[in-house]
Amino acid sequence: MAPRLLCFDVFGTVVDWRGSIVAEVSALSNSRGLSLDAEAFVDAWRLGYPKAMDEVRRGVLPWTRIDDLHRMILDKLIAQFSLESLSERERRDLNFAWHRLKPWPDSVEGLTRLKRKFIIVPLSNGNVSLLTNLAKFAGLPWDAILSAELFHAYKPDAAVYDGAARMMDVPPVQAMLVAAHKSDLTAAAARGFMTAFVDRPLEYGEGRHPDPGGDPAFNFNVTSFIELADALGA
Amino acid sequence: MAPRLLCFDVFGTVVDWRGSIVAEVSALSNSRGLSLDAEAFVDAWRLGYPKAMDEVRRGVLPWTRIDDLHRMILDKLIAQFSLESLSERERRDLNFAWHRLKPWPDSVEGLTRLKRKFIIVPLSNGNVSLLTNLAKFAGLPWDAILSAELFHAYKPDAAVYDGAARMMDVPPVQAMLVAAHKSDLTAAAARGFMTAFVDRPLEYGEGRHPDPGGDPAFNFNVTSFIELADALGA
Repeated sequence: MAPRLLCFDVFGTVVDWRGSIVAEVSALSNSRGLSLDAEAFVDAWRLGYPKAMDEVRRGVLPWTRIDDLHRMILDKLIAQFSLESLSERERRDLNFAWHRLKPWPDSVEGLTRLKRKFIIVPLSNGNVSLLTNLAKFAGLPWDAILSAELFHAYKPDAAVYDGAARMMDVPPVQAMLVAAHKSDLTAAAARGFMTAFVDRPLEYGEGRHPDPGGDPAFNFNVTSFIELADALGA
Repeated sequence: MAPRLLCFDVFGTVVDWRGSIVAEVSALSNSRGLSLDAEAFVDAWRLGYPKAMDEVRRGVLPWTRIDDLHRMILDKLIAQFSLESLSERERRDLNFAWHRLKPWPDSVEGLTRLKRKFIIVPLSNGNVSLLTNLAKFAGLPWDAILSAELFHAYKPDAAVYDGAARMMDVPPVQAMLVAAHKSDLTAAAARGFMTAFVDRPLEYGEGRHPDPGGDPAFNFNVTSFIELADALGA
């Protein structure tokens, strides 16, 4: 069975969030003379993210968008990294750095090819406005914007994969998740999706790769969207 | 205040639903030797649509997507127009003619220009999969797909306009509805949206124009998306 719908994880799979945010934080640090350790700051920011989502999943927090989770984590880091001199406007702009992430070098070309043959959508925990602004910034040619926000559940909850297939009116067996994270792919496969693992060795920076190689359990194991387009005949 | 987000009504405003469906129904009628009055059939199909939506609005029907409302109306018309010879596959394909509607001649060029300066999204009663397939078919360069389906409410319910602004994280005063229907614009204005009326004199066929001219109450009154792009400096 060939897929009709390709759903893409976004952070790490389509865009280089770490490199992009480190660059923004470094620029801010330099322009404000903050001598901030940008890499440590960004890693701490990202580290707070699964924990915050988990609090939503467990009902400790009500439904909260990623923009607001990012801001809650940022507010905690302000003291830790001695950033109290940042104005509210600067904090808000820094939080929106997550809307300005650079695609991996193969992302736009690969998505453009895949779009000719398939429906291509993000299926991200990022909120709809974040994903829309990001697509405009990075030139991602999505057919629609799907997000965990539409289902008020965060991946890897089954409701996200089920909801995406239902909303696009495609049976799960004709949907495929494309992701750089094995846990996401395994959760999608459990809901009947096909799976494509894309190796993104630099997501967490040089020499730190939590998800190396592929897995024969996935339908495809590739190292770029171009290779995926080739494999799918797009 | 300039808008940041442009929301577009779709059926009649962006695409010529009547001309498109009449062409499909005529082709089906000819190929099957049905001697069907395609215009009367399509008008009857469309006439059932506000009534069906109203049943959802009043709670007579639970939340139901337009695809399914179109199919319910179609099933009633089968007997009325003596179409019992159509197979289930043909009925299903006919129902999906609503996913294959041709844009007005200015739509794609105007949207492409407007997209450079604004976030552009459909805000239609059509369901997400319909609007996604339609965008692919017609080459509509949306930034995201918004639909009444996301809010489980049909326009002109306030929940649709409120939900669109909230989901795109834009204050209603920085959002604009673009539509060929005054009732839709009036409802959006009541929720704080700016408004642009686009005259589409052929929506219901030659010589039948329920919404002629504009209204000085709207922020813009234009006859094409090109004229709107000019007016908005896009």
